[in-house]
Amino acid sequence: MNLFELTVPQLAKTLRNVDRWLKSAEQYAEQRKFPVDNLIGARLAPDQYPLVRQIQTVCDNAKFIPGRLAGKEWPAHADTETTFEQLHARITAVLTYLETFKTSDLEGSAEKKISLPWMQSKWMTGIEYVTQFALPNFYFHTTLCYAILRHNGVPLGKNDFIGGIPMRD
Amino acid sequence: MNLFELTVPQLAKTLRNVDRWLKSAEQYAEQRKFPVDNLIGARLAPDQYPLVRQIQTVCDNAKFIPGRLAGKEWPAHADTETTFEQLHARITAVLTYLETFKTSDLEGSAEKKISLPWMQSKWMTGIEYVTQFALPNFYFHTTLCYAILRHNGVPLGKNDFIGGIPMRD
Repeated sequence: MNLFELTVPQLAKTLRNVDRWLKSAEQYAEQRKFPVDNLIGARLAPDQYPLVRQIQTVCDNAKFIPGRLAGKEWPAHADTETTFEQLHARITAVLTYLETFKTSDLEGSAEKKISLPWMQSKWMTGIEYVTQFALPNFYFHTTLCYAILRHNGVPLGKNDFIGGIPMRD
Repeated sequence: MNLFELTVPQLAKTLRNVDRWLKSAEQYAEQRKFPVDNLIGARLAPDQYPLVRQIQTVCDNAKFIPGRLAGKEWPAHADTETTFEQLHARITAVLTYLETFKTSDLEGSAEKKISLPWMQSKWMTGIEYVTQFALPNFYFHTTLCYAILRHNGVPLGKNDFIGGIPMRD
């Protein structure tokens, strides 16, 4: 099993979805005449990440996942974004990194030992990492971005979350 | 590629996580002295599913995904739950259904043509269905259950969302 198909194209597609939600928020802010960057600090609970950190985390997961599986260095980001414009730029930077991956980069990664930075001495296999940790965590933060925007009135629906699906006749 | 490992055990694990969040909500309600079933209709936006329907949808996805991949009939549920007790029972029923699956039931399902009820004449492959639609959709509703409870003060954290991961020394 090559983990490329389960990760790289789907992470990129989802990042492009998130980028579109930010654009919907910008349109909504323009209609309602408020500065869109007011949403940067919005959160659903006082002890939960605000929108800006949810987006940063989505971007980080999208680079960590194939980066760890392929053992390929990822671009560093300083987590200093304070505007929607900067968040778009961060998403674009990660999309550019994802475009550098080929299917062969993830050859054998299902059986590879993957460690996490906060448990360096322990490991799980690549397929366990993707299935049980990486994808659930990625969709967790992605959904929280969506939910924070929805909670603040941005008109989004399930189709915006999923994006296009490859239906054939 | 057999899709069993990507779906059945992980869907079951996540359902058990959701069941625990409901128990945390029950404990919180007892401490704060409110009827826990007050949370059944809670939602994050007026045009979004409330908690009860998020849980019903999580349960439905958990049976639809392996059911469609294996072509195996799933138990019907009438969506009539109005209490946490009934939601626990629904989760338990789906867990029992998931326990009937063997790895061999999903043999060849990555290439199988999968249609969706609202687009019966169209199809995608099993791997496309799992990667691009089924798992993102499952985690979407799962995260919304979590987010609705968090927004209402239930003390949950990321570890509760992910559940245990199979780390080895």
